[in-house]
Amino acid sequence: MAKKRPLILVCNDDGIFAPGIQALIDAVLPLGDILVVAPDSPQSGMGHAITINATLRVNQIKHDPDFPKYSCTGTPVDCIKVAVSHLAERPIDLIVSGINHGSNSSINVIYSGTMSAAVEGCIEGIPSIGFSLCDYSYDADFQPAIPYVQHLTKQVLQNGLPKGVCLNVNIPGPDKGPIKGVEVCRQARAQWVEELDERVDPRGGKYFWLTGVFKNMDQGKDTDEHALANGYISVVPVQIDITAYKAIPEISQWNLQP
Amino acid sequence: MAKKRPLILVCNDDGIFAPGIQALIDAVLPLGDILVVAPDSPQSGMGHAITINATLRVNQIKHDPDFPKYSCTGTPVDCIKVAVSHLAERPIDLIVSGINHGSNSSINVIYSGTMSAAVEGCIEGIPSIGFSLCDYSYDADFQPAIPYVQHLTKQVLQNGLPKGVCLNVNIPGPDKGPIKGVEVCRQARAQWVEELDERVDPRGGKYFWLTGVFKNMDQGKDTDEHALANGYISVVPVQIDITAYKAIPEISQWNLQP
Repeated sequence: MAKKRPLILVCNDDGIFAPGIQALIDAVLPLGDILVVAPDSPQSGMGHAITINATLRVNQIKHDPDFPKYSCTGTPVDCIKVAVSHLAERPIDLIVSGINHGSNSSINVIYSGTMSAAVEGCIEGIPSIGFSLCDYSYDADFQPAIPYVQHLTKQVLQNGLPKGVCLNVNIPGPDKGPIKGVEVCRQARAQWVEELDERVDPRGGKYFWLTGVFKNMDQGKDTDEHALANGYISVVPVQIDITAYKAIPEISQWNLQP
Repeated sequence: MAKKRPLILVCNDDGIFAPGIQALIDAVLPLGDILVVAPDSPQSGMGHAITINATLRVNQIKHDPDFPKYSCTGTPVDCIKVAVSHLAERPIDLIVSGINHGSNSSINVIYSGTMSAAVEGCIEGIPSIGFSLCDYSYDADFQPAIPYVQHLTKQVLQNGLPKGVCLNVNIPGPDKGPIKGVEVCRQARAQWVEELDERVDPRGGKYFWLTGVFKNMDQGKDTDEHALANGYISVVPVQIDITAYKAIPEISQWNLQP
């Protein structure tokens, strides 16, 4: 009996009609059977949000008959949950999320809906990869990234991933020239310094846009920010156990009883 | 010159009018100057979501004159960003989030708005603690937890926290009897097994409620689940660097170039 083709779930956070997810579908289509489940609207910055106080709708997109494709009213993490528990007709072998329009390197991994979909896949025990291109524009050129996306996906299909670990893959933008290669990195220490953009509505009410400046505080050459700044794709293995093990001995010595 | 009282920011994810945040305010009020910034509506399960595609409104709650209190239309993480960048008149010394109505132990830390507020505080470089009571009811009795919440808050004010680390504190529910003590733990390996509750709306359309069963796959006696099951408060140090360092050597040996 021929070995079954792997079942690959494709998700993203920019919404099912974003060019980035189409590029990702094109990249992984030769590698297995495809199931697409993605948000029906942009969900950038949704982090690991799930929908528990509202209902979910799921709609099949029927104008693309090559593989099953569903939009969901929820978050990227909802999409993974709906796909795993309801839409997939056999166990999912791999989850790919993206390709995100914009960077998810460094601390952005925590805010990213794209990466949260991959993290959710990892929680469900499925090898998962999030892909992001460091170009926020709708018309971003995903073509130079495709051979790398396809190759890394093949590598994960072949090698699997350690338990509780998924991959955060960021691809340098066009300003860095041709892609120089791939580096396995750690997450750079960085933060966003917020600036609230204060405005006044037509009725005189005050409102804000959340905005800010990304501040890299990490000069390490082993970081994702360093790799990207030098034109390399960064691959950061990400874990779902976020216990700070190194802090346990110190805190255990506190006087903990009132 | 007398030493200034510490400035303590109080946030939550159940919304500014939840009994849990009032219990937390009561607990920390003797310990410093208080600033309350919390969502204007329940935000459970919002994880580390931020509001980037919509505007934010901030309203001062004026019927409580003892300390400044603001509601925000955004997520718990938005509340921290608004407080740090806009509302606080001097640097914030400590952030406390909660007391959540319901557990945020184990893998729940990743979905939790309460803990994401603490994690955001940690990203901003401020010592931060999330408190949760393992009782989902609106009328949960927070009183037995208060001496512990107050004592742990004092300990953090006194000792600080390691850089990049915040605390996830869970308090056993009333079914466990009187609180037996406090244990420093690691996050138990667990997941939610989803069950989509499928329903039909009055116009014949299908919709879903996301529901599921919590499955603890970790029998370790050093976990938060073990402490809570035995009537102890669990304190898990949580880190914002989620790099899986142990996986770097293995993945570095893959053939990474297409």
